[in-house]
Amino acid sequence: MSKPTENDCALIALDWGTSSLRCYRFDAHGSVAERRGHPWGIMNLPVVEGAAANPALAFRSALEAACGDWMAAAPDAPLIAAGMVGSKQGWREAPYLTVPLAPDRIGRKLLRIDTGLARPLYIVPGLLQVSALPNVMRGEETQVIGALQQWRDDELLIGLPGTHSKWVRVTHGRIQHFDTFMTGEVYGALSAHTILGRTMHKPDVPDDAAFMRGARVAQSAEGLAGVLSNIFSCRTLGLTGELEPQAQPDYLSGLLIGHEIAALKDMASHHPQRIGLIGDPALCRRYRLALELYGMGPVSEAEQATEAGLWILAQHAGLVG
Amino acid sequence: MSKPTENDCALIALDWGTSSLRCYRFDAHGSVAERRGHPWGIMNLPVVEGAAANPALAFRSALEAACGDWMAAAPDAPLIAAGMVGSKQGWREAPYLTVPLAPDRIGRKLLRIDTGLARPLYIVPGLLQVSALPNVMRGEETQVIGALQQWRDDELLIGLPGTHSKWVRVTHGRIQHFDTFMTGEVYGALSAHTILGRTMHKPDVPDDAAFMRGARVAQSAEGLAGVLSNIFSCRTLGLTGELEPQAQPDYLSGLLIGHEIAALKDMASHHPQRIGLIGDPALCRRYRLALELYGMGPVSEAEQATEAGLWILAQHAGLVG
Repeated sequence: MSKPTENDCALIALDWGTSSLRCYRFDAHGSVAERRGHPWGIMNLPVVEGAAANPALAFRSALEAACGDWMAAAPDAPLIAAGMVGSKQGWREAPYLTVPLAPDRIGRKLLRIDTGLARPLYIVPGLLQVSALPNVMRGEETQVIGALQQWRDDELLIGLPGTHSKWVRVTHGRIQHFDTFMTGEVYGALSAHTILGRTMHKPDVPDDAAFMRGARVAQSAEGLAGVLSNIFSCRTLGLTGELEPQAQPDYLSGLLIGHEIAALKDMASHHPQRIGLIGDPALCRRYRLALELYGMGPVSEAEQATEAGLWILAQHAGLVG
Repeated sequence: MSKPTENDCALIALDWGTSSLRCYRFDAHGSVAERRGHPWGIMNLPVVEGAAANPALAFRSALEAACGDWMAAAPDAPLIAAGMVGSKQGWREAPYLTVPLAPDRIGRKLLRIDTGLARPLYIVPGLLQVSALPNVMRGEETQVIGALQQWRDDELLIGLPGTHSKWVRVTHGRIQHFDTFMTGEVYGALSAHTILGRTMHKPDVPDDAAFMRGARVAQSAEGLAGVLSNIFSCRTLGLTGELEPQAQPDYLSGLLIGHEIAALKDMASHHPQRIGLIGDPALCRRYRLALELYGMGPVSEAEQATEAGLWILAQHAGLVG
């Protein structure tokens, strides 16, 4: 690890989520000079005396432990953070901005908070979609903004697979609309806390054939029965000897992701549009397989979207040149 | 509790499920003279020495503790049991019978096992539907057979709401086809083991308005996004102050049951048909509300379907006159 100097620390940027805190030190050219990860998500902060009465103490302590050396070496480098740190359970709540909107609007609405560490922290607000069923995101807006550097299509559908998958429609660079699917969290709850998990054995390597078999069910006549019914087949195919215990986790994953993509296709406009994926490569690969099954795409994957987004938002905010 | 005599004990019948053991003493007219409930479901048997090596000992012990006095007073009364006692985890596995079939076929295929208590126990087999996604039931077949006494329609759709809701199509008294929806278990897993549960407060009395609001979502344009997406609205409507914590459990229940009924309607033939419900009255009431929302029915509720089914199956088996 090189000792940072004023010159190579133009911005300290944080991706501060529920379970982890990721830190990026940017040089003056907007390149990441150093990155670090810590387990200090907002639900897992270091234990600090007095934090029960004043939670800010725990956030400050995590920030100092994570980036104190960068801050000391670069007293003028601004601090920016995206993610759940701006939620009600975070350091301070950054009110949601309403879509549709253009990315520069977000950069002009960062929440400035006093860190007690001789420089403020600017928190990126999340996005709210006001509709019959409202929708929210916090953190993903920054990834989308970063990925938009890479895709210049007039119309884009950006998917962020994960615990709560987001699908974001972007038109001419503006974030228009988004949907959330709780696919990842539902998968976890079904595997760990229902009868389906009892016969499952996690395979050593992902079982693509089982995944695709599940994904195809959502597309078949049987898919009409819906997710709540189809998932039971994970058990009954096991009972009849048609699905090995080792194949059951990926089959269930395919069923759920298949239904997510099927719904997405039903909701999407009929115009061909590029689909961009942001996230864990193994998970993006599965989503790509399911999207191809449904004839959707072309599909591209974004890289380092979070850090790119943090830099761009800092630019929009006037924190960096 | 009257002391039974040979005359008023023509059949000892058991509904032996995962979490409970319900016992019925029938008189010679086929009326229930006495009923008892015990917590000795197959996953919760009394602790008995040697049961680890020989699980039958625990089953025998539970049976004797539950009905030993009835058996002593009526040495010739036959024993019949339905439910998970016939599963792989039960006393002995009673192989599934394949639908379609007529109820009397089930009665002729009871599994006879030696109890070690001077009379055999006859276990009702479950049903298997062989199809692209197979389906199974164990216990519900007995309830359906009991309820069929009450409905003589040529075509019936029978719903058994619960942890795993079953929907059974019956034509001219034959069980043709059935589907399973894991609605109850999914509700439990989502409430207890996902972010949705964190903001929920169980209301003192069921909130029908919240339930119907959820059920209507499945029917609306937003319903196109599917269960995996719609459930997130439980959280976001809370975040935007549009859904009180006390309304969230019933809203989620309405969402899930709404999607179950929506899928059922998509799958159903277009002929008008009577819908019969069997199960917990409070849960059946909710299903009735959702069915009415979808214009399905007329809806009738069955009473004492389990005991009626056990008696009829004992008749088909020639155990009682």
